[in-house]
Amino acid sequence: MRNLRMTLQYDGTEFSGWQTQPGFRTVQAIFEAAVQSVTQVERMRANCSGRTDAGVHALGQVANFYTPTRLPCDVLVRAVNANLPDDVRVRDCDDVPQSFCANKDAVAKTYRYVIDDGRIQNPFARRYAFHCRKTLDVTAMQAAANALVGRHDFRSFETNWPNRLSSVRTISRLTVERVNEFVQIEVTADGFLYNMVRTIAGTLLQVGRGLWPVERVFEVLNAMDRRLAGPTAPPEGLFLLHVNYERVSV
Amino acid sequence: MRNLRMTLQYDGTEFSGWQTQPGFRTVQAIFEAAVQSVTQVERMRANCSGRTDAGVHALGQVANFYTPTRLPCDVLVRAVNANLPDDVRVRDCDDVPQSFCANKDAVAKTYRYVIDDGRIQNPFARRYAFHCRKTLDVTAMQAAANALVGRHDFRSFETNWPNRLSSVRTISRLTVERVNEFVQIEVTADGFLYNMVRTIAGTLLQVGRGLWPVERVFEVLNAMDRRLAGPTAPPEGLFLLHVNYERVSV
Repeated sequence: MRNLRMTLQYDGTEFSGWQTQPGFRTVQAIFEAAVQSVTQVERMRANCSGRTDAGVHALGQVANFYTPTRLPCDVLVRAVNANLPDDVRVRDCDDVPQSFCANKDAVAKTYRYVIDDGRIQNPFARRYAFHCRKTLDVTAMQAAANALVGRHDFRSFETNWPNRLSSVRTISRLTVERVNEFVQIEVTADGFLYNMVRTIAGTLLQVGRGLWPVERVFEVLNAMDRRLAGPTAPPEGLFLLHVNYERVSV
Repeated sequence: MRNLRMTLQYDGTEFSGWQTQPGFRTVQAIFEAAVQSVTQVERMRANCSGRTDAGVHALGQVANFYTPTRLPCDVLVRAVNANLPDDVRVRDCDDVPQSFCANKDAVAKTYRYVIDDGRIQNPFARRYAFHCRKTLDVTAMQAAANALVGRHDFRSFETNWPNRLSSVRTISRLTVERVNEFVQIEVTADGFLYNMVRTIAGTLLQVGRGLWPVERVFEVLNAMDRRLAGPTAPPEGLFLLHVNYERVSV
């Protein structure tokens, strides 16, 4: 059996997230069905780097699966894409060692959260950015974001803590930038807790709107209490950008 | 009665074009209904700079209409937007002279046609760009485009000629540019014939794909025969960007 890694892009708008759920349109179910129809294998199970929630987008989701197919990678990309709806695409495919797992071997992931803070919502961004009517103070947001960089217990930013053995994670980069009429938050960490990026975005939004002083974000982090953080920002602004792995040689 | 001018943006994907047609979701019908509900006037008729077809987008459509309302323009923008679905937005509103007509007074219009020529279609651009699997030769397309600049009889680029008294128009600017993974054609003219931009795009695509030599576009123009031009490119790549008017003073 080969172990194949594929990089996927999807517009999450019309998906009920990654994970298969009977009766719902999910990326995993649609992707697995497309691969199965190409490889003529009845049952295939794809692992991904991390399940995305309903409405969340991906520019660089990574999945792996085992398959007996002998088709070369470039042929597989074309054939699988021909069997996928146009809101999900395979961008790349390569052979990886048997031991490779898209989830467990991820050493870092990067997400982007996009906010349209124009007075009037941009109709072309309505599916790809959260609309906030008030012009945001990006400088204050970046100052607040700096408080979160480093190794911390992020349980204040986790929905339904505890979900995992530990809520300690390391954010290596957290930037807030204006890009034309949008504000983009980008965050890289060794792992993310449930709703962590959306809670960080919701918290930085409170600062950007001028409702909270910058220092409040330090206090939220230290309190280790989810009730003190901002609301979970809506899914349409969130993109999984990139997953990093240790270099693998085949 | 005041004569009001509004600038509109809309994502054309889910509209059957501008013009009201019973049983179809059109921008005109939805816009008029929103204005009527704000101004409490039963029947209002909006004129636009030019009707866009089904699936065509607008970043700067302009419409005018007569209304007895005394609401200030900024209040009207907010109130009308609150009554519109989120795929259409009013960006601006101003009072114009009684004689102003968004259609007849337009002195120039600019359209953009967007092509995704990545090997694998970008799922986020599928509604906003035409996907062409072959990498386009932008230099050849620009050379061919230059043949169309100036005052010419464009009947070779008009669907169902003749629709108007004359098919002579003046293109003042026609550029072809690569913007990241997209190719953008922008064209400014004093007026456009039916499907003219999409036929120009379809013709330049033949050149960009290497199917036609650059000189063929001169021949198509001079032949004054629609059958010799390229196919009408699909609507999802087309955006009405901007309409120019002589300066009006109120």
